[in-house]
This record gives sequence, structure tokens and C-alpha cells, in this order.
Amino acid sequence: MRNTDTILPDAGARDDMAQIAAALLVRLRARVPHIHCITNAVAQNFTANALLAASCVPSMTLSPEEIGPFVAGSQALLVNLGTFDRERREATDIAVETARQGNVPWVLDPVFVDRATPRADFARKLIALLPKVVRLNHAEFSALANAKPTRDALVAYARRHKTVVALSGETDWVTDGKRLAIIANGHPLMAKVTAMGCAASALIAACLAIEPDAWRASAAALEMLGVAGELAAAKADGPGSFAVAIIDALYNLDGPALIAQSRIEIAKVN
Amino acid sequence: MRNTDTILPDAGARDDMAQIAAALLVRLRARVPHIHCITNAVAQNFTANALLAASCVPSMTLSPEEIGPFVAGSQALLVNLGTFDRERREATDIAVETARQGNVPWVLDPVFVDRATPRADFARKLIALLPKVVRLNHAEFSALANAKPTRDALVAYARRHKTVVALSGETDWVTDGKRLAIIANGHPLMAKVTAMGCAASALIAACLAIEPDAWRASAAALEMLGVAGELAAAKADGPGSFAVAIIDALYNLDGPALIAQSRIEIAKVN
Amino acid sequence: MRNTDTILPDAGARDDMAQIAAALLVRLRARVPHIHCITNAVAQNFTANALLAASCVPSMTLSPEEIGPFVAGSQALLVNLGTFDRERREATDIAVETARQGNVPWVLDPVFVDRATPRADFARKLIALLPKVVRLNHAEFSALANAKPTRDALVAYARRHKTVVALSGETDWVTDGKRLAIIANGHPLMAKVTAMGCAASALIAACLAIEPDAWRASAAALEMLGVAGELAAAKADGPGSFAVAIIDALYNLDGPALIAQSRIEIAKVN
Repeated sequence: MRNTDTILPDAGARDDMAQIAAALLVRLRARVPHIHCITNAVAQNFTANALLAASCVPSMTLSPEEIGPFVAGSQALLVNLGTFDRERREATDIAVETARQGNVPWVLDPVFVDRATPRADFARKLIALLPKVVRLNHAEFSALANAKPTRDALVAYARRHKTVVALSGETDWVTDGKRLAIIANGHPLMAKVTAMGCAASALIAACLAIEPDAWRASAAALEMLGVAGELAAAKADGPGSFAVAIIDALYNLDGPALIAQSRIEIAKVN
Repeated sequence: MRNTDTILPDAGARDDMAQIAAALLVRLRARVPHIHCITNAVAQNFTANALLAASCVPSMTLSPEEIGPFVAGSQALLVNLGTFDRERREATDIAVETARQGNVPWVLDPVFVDRATPRADFARKLIALLPKVVRLNHAEFSALANAKPTRDALVAYARRHKTVVALSGETDWVTDGKRLAIIANGHPLMAKVTAMGCAASALIAACLAIEPDAWRASAAALEMLGVAGELAAAKADGPGSFAVAIIDALYNLDGPALIAQSRIEIAKVN
Repeated sequence: MRNTDTILPDAGARDDMAQIAAALLVRLRARVPHIHCITNAVAQNFTANALLAASCVPSMTLSPEEIGPFVAGSQALLVNLGTFDRERREATDIAVETARQGNVPWVLDPVFVDRATPRADFARKLIALLPKVVRLNHAEFSALANAKPTRDALVAYARRHKTVVALSGETDWVTDGKRLAIIANGHPLMAKVTAMGCAASALIAACLAIEPDAWRASAAALEMLGVAGELAAAKADGPGSFAVAIIDALYNLDGPALIAQSRIEIAKVN
């Protein structure tokens, strides 16, 4: 018997999580948190627009002289390893140190660590610095963990590294080693727009800015984006119009729509 | 009595300025000026598309070997301090020196100077080099001028620094220390799209390329963008579709629409 | 008599090339090639989305530690000289060397070589390293070749440099020195969207990844984009909505539409 069989559904938990996500959405709009993003050159514009649509103030500077005050003045930090270079490496060291000193929660998005060993090594060094959340896809998890992305492997990884693992895929899995959320929302067009995963990580940072339970914040953020993706797909003719419509959908998203469309399942973990 | 009470409306001036903006639009389309932009990584694509829609040829290179000839071959220069780094600092020094030698007018956009002291210091150094226009928002003006953004403070700042101040907000204020334009055009969605302010500064550069009166150029540019914003909002479902529609609106904007929708007021300054 | 008079139409060739393009489209969707792009900061997002719409996996990193493995794991490489800087120069040296060792075909897009001499010199150095294709516009060809972009000049340039020249303009011309394709597809709005030429070069790289005949790959890619542009223009209100619609059109493009709308002419070259 595989150990994943011991992950049991929790009656009523689905509705709870949808309610939590709806409440987080209201709090985001009331608080308007500052989110600092170290992110790749391809994703900067789309990420900024996704954060603005979710009622955040994004900033993106990388300069070593300035990133300290920018992070210190933010309520959460995103570190995305896409188009990683010397400038971003230097910025990351300062930003993470500032975040740790100021108790600013941070999210790591280890983009394409399956494509280059130096990047995977850098990601591992960062994970040792205790990001609240690591969001990644199947290939990236496999490269980082040297293991297939089974539920068991995710749970074990989250426990070992004292973090939340948020795995994007056909269904999204979010675990802190004790709880597992399985999110079936989303749409295949999300994989045809560049920076969609980067925007997911940025929305997790947004939710972390207002919710100390990193597992709840991560599951809520992925649910928001997944539902927005479904609403956008209904209006889109392809990935171009989908990328536009999902920003509109995030901006217009409300609690009742989230609760009505939520396909989230909560499982206990042995 | 506050000194702002001495700012008096000028009968007939509204229509004059709308006519001026309409005439500038025609000249832009006839001249197709080259505009070189040092701008932040988040804004580069949207700014280039806004300039193309307004019938300009944008260029964006930052390399010290090349930026001199690019600026020398342009009719105006934008210096935007977003995502400021060593490369942009070095590029700015060369670009501004080239612009001064070649009498290329330039605009400074001191993005987020309220968030980091080194950036505010760099902006002050640049303002001493006499940009034709400084375009900024309320928080940025407060940080630069150590004063609240009242009309008096703007007028005083413009006089002291021999520049035009173009302040974006719910209404835009543009002053050269002698004249004040108050522009009520625009739409709240403009604040929900990243790089909208950067695009405003780029359009000011576009108008400066063909109009030597920097106050007129700035007011006309902000009016064009404000009217385009209103036209776009009528077609948009949220900030995603708004960002697309405002590029269409800029491209399709014509003099009669500008004149019909213009909500600009001209005031004299004591 | 001008030498171009000796370029003779080849009966039936039009339909052949449309069939070839349609077949390439099917192969792209079956193979999902990895395309590594060194491209300018303005173009990165649009290029990534164009490649995703054409069923490729784009990557964009520039870091010298990583670009080697990224290129080695790709089926084609794009080198675009926009916003060229030290980082991109260093990346290009490593990427081209990796491509040559691994027989990864590569495309050169010498953006704006007409605007700065150092960039033109760098482009000439790269052309000596035998890119499979050089895609450029009229001003860029004139600057590189010190000759007006006549058909004869293109043919001579392709022969001398052992490459395919793909010239974008009102009609696109593609020659390998022996054959010439004349593509009349496309729409004027393509010139009003930033990075459209960069996306054309990226699509050529995509077709090169699956088609060893670089002349066929280039002509097919420009035809795909041209037909997508025509389909997009039918839905667009201006360059903003056009940029969105052309991504949708690329994603939805199929063989029958390509064959029905193809306006390609094949000429022999003496």
C-alpha cells in the first residue's frame, strides 16, 4: 500500500478553504500590500499587472544600493530565478537578508532549475534560508528533490525543509508537511502564456503579506488564479486574449464567484 | 489667504489648449520623431507600444558604447528611474551629456524616489542638469521637494529648478512657474496598469520632440493620454483589456475627439 | 537589363511552399521544440508568447554560467541585437560557440544596426560565424551590406555569406542565393507593434528547429506570421488589440487557413 493512501479527505474542509480564500481577497483589497519582486525579465510586466489587479503595489528594482529599503518597506518578497544573472544573484542575497531581519515573508520560484545545474545549486542554497513557500512545476521539483513529484515526496520535502511546497500542474498540490490542499481549478491555456507560473508565485507573496499561515495563503492564491483562469477562458479566443482576460478576471474576482467555482480538496497527511 | 487663491482662470484658454493638443497630434503623425528611452524593465514594452501608437520610433538601448549615437539621432530623450541600476546610471550620464550637447530635449521621470534615498539623490543630481520636464506623482514630488504637492509648491519648484513640473494624480497639474494647466481627463483604471505613468512621460518626450514650449508639450501629452484613457475605459472590462484599449485609443485619437472631450483649465500664476 | 529580370517564377511553386508551411506547422505542434532566445528587453515577453502560441518552449536566460546548458538543450537559437549590452555580448559569444559545437541552428536579427556603428561591427563579426539565417529590415540590410536592398543585392549577400537572408518589408523576400521566396502576406499594423520583427525571427528559429532547409524554414515562418497578421487585423481596433489577436491567430492557425491565404511566390535566381 502506498503511503499516499493514508492521505484522507476532510469533510467540510473544501468549503472552509473557499471561505478563507474569499476572506483573503477582501483583506487584500483593504490592505493594498507592497510586494517586492525579484523576477525575470520576461515576467516583470505581467507580474506587475497581476499584482495591481489583486490590489497590491508591486516594485521590481534589483539595484544593490536600493533593494534593501524596497524590501524593508514591503509586506512580502518574491524571489524568482528566471533569467538569473549576476545582478539578480547579488540582489537576492541582499533582499533575503533584509527579509529575514525584518520578518518579511518570502516565496521562492525556482524557474527552470531542471535546465542548468548552477541554478539548481543556487536554489538549494536559498531553500536553506527558509522561504515560507517554494512554488514550482513537476520538472523543477524533480530536479530539486531528486524525486518524482508524488504526494509523499512533496510532504517529505516540505517537512525536511520546513517550508510550504506549492506544486503547479494539472491539479495544484500545496503542502506544509502536515496538510495537503488539492486544487483542481485552472485551465490549459494557463500553460500557454509566459509568466503565468511567475504570477502565481507573486500572488502567493501577496497572500503571505496578509496571512501568516503560509499553507493557507498559498492554497488561496492558487485557487484565486485558477478560478480567474476559468473565467478568462470563457472569454478568450486563444492565449493572447486569455492573458488579457485573466488580469480582468483577477481584478473583478469576488468572494461569491470564488466560493461557487472552487474545486479544492483538503487532505490530512499521516 | 493662501497663495493658490491668486491662481486665476483664463477665459478661453481651455479651448486654446485643446486646439494646441489637436495640432500637436497632427504634427506627431507627420514628423514620426525618434524618441530614445532609458526606462525600467517593467515599462519597456508598454512604453514602446504607446510611442508607436502615437506615431513615434522608440529605441531603448542602454549600452554605453551605443547610447550616444542613439540619443544623438533622436528628437527627444526620456530618463525614467524605475528599476535603476549601474547600467542605467552609466547610460543616463552619457545620454544626458549627449542630449545637452545636441540640444535634444529630455524628460525626467523619478519613479519611486519616495522608496529609496540613493534614487532621490540621483534624481536631484539630474534635475540640476536641467531636464525640460519632470513628470511625477504626489509621493515622488513630496520626496524630491520636501514639500506637499500643493499648487504653490509646484510653481515654486518649477521656478527654482527652471523646469516644467507635470504632476499626475486625480487631476494632472502642469506648470512652468508662470502658467498652470489643470487636466481633469483620465480614468481610475490608469492607476491599475503598470507603466502608465512611464508611458505618460514618454508621450511628453514625444510632444517635446516637435514643440519647443515644454509646458504646452507636457499639457498636450497628458491630455492626449487622459482622453485616450476615457475612450479605453468605455471598452474595457478591467485593467487587462484597458491596457490594450488605451493603445488602440492613442492610435485612433484625432483632433475632434480631443477637443470634444478635453477637460483642461488654464490658470495664471502670480 | 537588370539582373533581377532573370529571376523567373516557378509554376506550381506557390502551392508547394504553402503546403510546406502547413506541414511545418503540424510538425511544430508534434515536436514542441525548445528555442533559446538572446533577445532585447522590449521583446522578451511578446517573443515568449509568440513561441508558446506556435507550440515551442522558449527560454531567455543570458547568464554566462547557464546559457551554455540552455542552448545545448535547445533545438534552435535566436540572437537578436536589440538593447545590446555587455551581458548580451558575453552571452552571445558563449551561446554561438555552444550552438556551433552542438549543431544547433541559429538565427541572427541585427536590430537597429543602422543606428550605431559598434552594433553593426558586432553583427558583421557574428555573420562570419555562419548563422543559418539573417532576418532584418531594409534600413538594417543597407547598413550591413552597404547596398540598397534590391533582390540582386540580397542574393549576392546570401551567396557571399553562405546564409539565408530574410528581409521584412511590405513584401518579405527570402533567399539563400539560389532560390527566392516573395511573401505578400502581412498587414501594416505589424509595423505598429514593438517586437513584431523580433517575433518573426523567433518563429524562423522555431521552424529551423524542425526543418534543415533554412530557406524553407524561413519562408514558412514569415508566411505563418503574415497570415496570422491578416487574421488578427480582421479582429483588431488598433495596434493594442492587434498584438493580442496575432498571438491568438498563431495559436489557432491551421494548414487549410495557411494554404487558402498564402500569397507566396517562388522565383529562380540565375
